[in-house]
Amino acid sequence: MSTPLSPLNPPRRLLFGPGPTMVDPRVYQAMTKTVVSHLDPYFFEVVEDCRRLLRVAFGTANEFTLAMSGTGSAGMQTAVANFVEPGSTFVVLAAGFFADRMSEMGRRQGANVIRIEKPWGEAFDQNEVAAKIRELKPNVVGFVQAETSTGVFQNSEILCAAAHEVGALTMSDCVTSLGAMPVELDKQGIDIGYSCTQKGMSCPPGLAPVTVSPRAMEWLKARKTTPADWYLDLKLLADYYEGAHRYHHTAPISLFYALREGLSVINDEGIENRWLRHKLSHEMFVAGVEAMGLRMHVKAGNRIWNLNTPVIPEGVDDLKVRKRLLAATDIEISGGFGPLAGKVFRVGIMGPLATEDNTLLLLKGMQDALAGEGFAVKGDAVAAAQAAVTWPVAQLV
Amino acid sequence: MSTPLSPLNPPRRLLFGPGPTMVDPRVYQAMTKTVVSHLDPYFFEVVEDCRRLLRVAFGTANEFTLAMSGTGSAGMQTAVANFVEPGSTFVVLAAGFFADRMSEMGRRQGANVIRIEKPWGEAFDQNEVAAKIRELKPNVVGFVQAETSTGVFQNSEILCAAAHEVGALTMSDCVTSLGAMPVELDKQGIDIGYSCTQKGMSCPPGLAPVTVSPRAMEWLKARKTTPADWYLDLKLLADYYEGAHRYHHTAPISLFYALREGLSVINDEGIENRWLRHKLSHEMFVAGVEAMGLRMHVKAGNRIWNLNTPVIPEGVDDLKVRKRLLAATDIEISGGFGPLAGKVFRVGIMGPLATEDNTLLLLKGMQDALAGEGFAVKGDAVAAAQAAVTWPVAQLV
Repeated sequence: MSTPLSPLNPPRRLLFGPGPTMVDPRVYQAMTKTVVSHLDPYFFEVVEDCRRLLRVAFGTANEFTLAMSGTGSAGMQTAVANFVEPGSTFVVLAAGFFADRMSEMGRRQGANVIRIEKPWGEAFDQNEVAAKIRELKPNVVGFVQAETSTGVFQNSEILCAAAHEVGALTMSDCVTSLGAMPVELDKQGIDIGYSCTQKGMSCPPGLAPVTVSPRAMEWLKARKTTPADWYLDLKLLADYYEGAHRYHHTAPISLFYALREGLSVINDEGIENRWLRHKLSHEMFVAGVEAMGLRMHVKAGNRIWNLNTPVIPEGVDDLKVRKRLLAATDIEISGGFGPLAGKVFRVGIMGPLATEDNTLLLLKGMQDALAGEGFAVKGDAVAAAQAAVTWPVAQLV
Repeated sequence: MSTPLSPLNPPRRLLFGPGPTMVDPRVYQAMTKTVVSHLDPYFFEVVEDCRRLLRVAFGTANEFTLAMSGTGSAGMQTAVANFVEPGSTFVVLAAGFFADRMSEMGRRQGANVIRIEKPWGEAFDQNEVAAKIRELKPNVVGFVQAETSTGVFQNSEILCAAAHEVGALTMSDCVTSLGAMPVELDKQGIDIGYSCTQKGMSCPPGLAPVTVSPRAMEWLKARKTTPADWYLDLKLLADYYEGAHRYHHTAPISLFYALREGLSVINDEGIENRWLRHKLSHEMFVAGVEAMGLRMHVKAGNRIWNLNTPVIPEGVDDLKVRKRLLAATDIEISGGFGPLAGKVFRVGIMGPLATEDNTLLLLKGMQDALAGEGFAVKGDAVAAAQAAVTWPVAQLV
């Protein structure tokens, strides 16, 4: 007889990092529901509910909207492996870690990857990019709508229109935006969007929502080469999730229960109310950290609401502040990496945490931790945050 | 405001199919535990427990044992994408659906796939295969240890020894065997084994345990070409799960909690006791269906304990029997497919269902459903099953 394992007992954390973030209690409960078969009609009802509500979150009318049986990175691979053919030209707007990953995936597919680069933390000028796209005439243009490594939100109507002009498909990483701020996929001109479940959707990680425009589906149906990737092959997955329900793989049933419940929570609140909660929390946070004497790494207007990147003040140790914060409050925030390592904090305020009280709790905790590490706090973050934003109590949580 | 969704309310099913199967209640509870970050030291403790106990289930000393963030098919793709290089020779022993899938994945990697074929339901003669391997001198030999589509268990000591003689790596699909019967990976000579969580492990689907021998890891480290598959790239995953814990993807934390708890349940029972439960249930089942007048599709000695394929008697309608069984008892069994469509039932007796009482319940249900569909039952399945096997009550559930 082997030694019994200790009971599973994760430490308490208030997840104010870039993700995973706090999961709604209803979502945890949903995962205790009995598993049915991956070919059970009930499972496909669950899938249909997910598909319908994912469209709302993505801001799309795309019929082909579903969730891959993998995490957000599997969503990226789905996009690249299905739509970037060997030998094709793949333009990537690169100003962060996830754009680098997208480039790498493109190279692994044997594409000719052309990168248009900016420093980490800057948004692209759409007209500049559009001109470049008209010149390069690529097959696919890829970019990151919400760059988790920098905090930049990239608008894309103009650059996507240019891509469509030259017959290119557009794909975008919506991993951090989905569920927390308007993705507006159709309005932004994005053909292929993908995301995850553990950020704005307040579910555990494990699924990757993906949506594909009718024009991209047409392209895919006409694609002559077979993708190397069988597991994430969208043509095979279409046969499983639509029409014939032909067996492909055994979908992770409990995670689909979780996603349906997460979407149901969003539906009950109303997605506009949810977006507003994230926007207000963001505005409070910015007012608070600026009052303390920090500045935001990303210019106003280009910021992701639910992923803030305040610059770490000169002489303050990133890791020490975060350790102190965690020890004192159970609050976990994240650091930067790559060129931003030690230079910014990455602070996610998402889902159940995107409320007035929680944002103030976070600001208070950060202020104390910074002060504890020798930073001369300029003004009171909590008071400034409260003064800056009026929270419409009646309407929101 | 959108219409609220109905509460999640899956139908009651006793899952006696090939999987997913019944999940242990402790595993459902484990998934309600609070998610921590994918870089949290606690998460890596959970991972280490999983790795250690997976080795026991696989019957291996392989240091490199972990779980992919995808389902069993992602496990297969991990094996093929990492170890089958473009242009290499990949011999596949093909006598079932999952061997066909393995061949297809090999082709997608650009390998020269050579199939050694047998009718669905037959095991391979190891000496014949060994001779063929010596002749073909492939780079990799792939086969299915427990073929879910047919019910055949394939032994492999001799054929794997021949593969090693010619310098080939061996890979095997252990999707249906892991946790329910001895995989004996090291004894069987398998370099790369992969499985799932929703069969013998009694967890929900969503992770794919994978184990790699030191010689295969050496080969992988020396591999010059980069796999097209980034998400399942084992070199990158080694950096995430071992040593530096360098971020790769956000692992599905809740599913790792589930897997740890599932392994803990197995550890508490003792894996030999668990195997014995599956063996005895299998023996009862065979005695029962044979008493009814059915015969088993697979020869004695070649059968998977936890996945039985009784032949559907002449004149009996597969689907009608299964529908009647489900309606009367909530028991779900599965049909055959491909060349075995309409010819066999696929009956899984796994995990919490692999007990004397449940096996008798299943036999009674099948007997009534077959009789209801006009089959002239020869003898009483329950009595025969009880007479055939003595269940050591004191030791087992």
